[in-house]
Amino acid sequence: MASVTGPEIERLIQLLARLPGLGPRSARRAALTLIKKREQLMVPLSSALQIACERVVVCSNCGNIDTCDPCTLCSDPRRENTLLVVVEDVADLWALERAGVVNARYHVLGGTLSPLDGVGPEDLTIDRLVARVAEGGVSEVILALNATVDGQTTAHYVTDLLAPTGVKVTKLAHGVPVGGELDYLDEGTLAAAIRSRTPF
Amino acid sequence: MASVTGPEIERLIQLLARLPGLGPRSARRAALTLIKKREQLMVPLSSALQIACERVVVCSNCGNIDTCDPCTLCSDPRRENTLLVVVEDVADLWALERAGVVNARYHVLGGTLSPLDGVGPEDLTIDRLVARVAEGGVSEVILALNATVDGQTTAHYVTDLLAPTGVKVTKLAHGVPVGGELDYLDEGTLAAAIRSRTPF
Repeated sequence: MASVTGPEIERLIQLLARLPGLGPRSARRAALTLIKKREQLMVPLSSALQIACERVVVCSNCGNIDTCDPCTLCSDPRRENTLLVVVEDVADLWALERAGVVNARYHVLGGTLSPLDGVGPEDLTIDRLVARVAEGGVSEVILALNATVDGQTTAHYVTDLLAPTGVKVTKLAHGVPVGGELDYLDEGTLAAAIRSRTPF
Repeated sequence: MASVTGPEIERLIQLLARLPGLGPRSARRAALTLIKKREQLMVPLSSALQIACERVVVCSNCGNIDTCDPCTLCSDPRRENTLLVVVEDVADLWALERAGVVNARYHVLGGTLSPLDGVGPEDLTIDRLVARVAEGGVSEVILALNATVDGQTTAHYVTDLLAPTGVKVTKLAHGVPVGGELDYLDEGTLAAAIRSRTPF
């Protein structure tokens, strides 16, 4: 390909191919789209990326990604201060906010404990979480971690560390997803749904 | 979402979502990946886009996209001057070059005739193609257009316009794709494969 087009375009394609969801072929398509829509898409995207490079920061309080520190969520006075939702990743925080189901503060751990991948407590923001809770004012910590082995291991670890603070620690309910069909669910989910059945 | 993260990040996500192959959800994932890999990915991509914005041009001779005009292909002295391959789009040119199956010059039409979409001959580079062939030196024009109704309509139109020049006009063979199974092929392809059968 080096002889077909300039190295600058090749470089653009290679970088686009490193985005999740884009492979080498779709990266080429994306590059061609960008070049064809120069004014409507390539120029704005270039400047949006430059602004993001310069201004995006990780909130030193909760770990959210924003252009100010503390982030929009941490400095929002309408948020419930007594409720702290712990998530693995910023994507999970955004998912909960899109759903708009909880009015709380957040804490992003930055991952889960994973001995096999060499991720220990020091790689996550667990210390910072314990410090935030110890500062007082929080009456409930909701562990909104993924229902994976690593997620649940992390949940247990965090719960143990929070025990001395006496704060109430809860976790998300397991059960049948809304709109889900029993036939397609795994046994673990069905067992959890039976176990946690509620009065009709 | 406006209250969760800065408007700059929202804008980046919206622009990424306009790339082919990325939807709103994968654009968010891509934006988070970019932000997490700031030095390895976001900064290089930002500068690659800026360079592309400034330097990418359409070759005034063949319609290829490059950072020089005439493009790398048009100024390559090792290319066969007598063979001219006509394609709809730059992506088709790149696909043929990746396959490395023909050592020729190219001509990018910029689309196909499509009365329903309001695309007429004046929207394509057909005039320029006829002028290039009329200049002489070309002994064969290969119409490498898509095997769609619009592609074939365009092929007929171009062939008629090229007839006065007396140049040989050929088109790509139709048949069973290499590695393809008969059971999965449509009747049109099977009919073409039978019609154009070759001695074994």
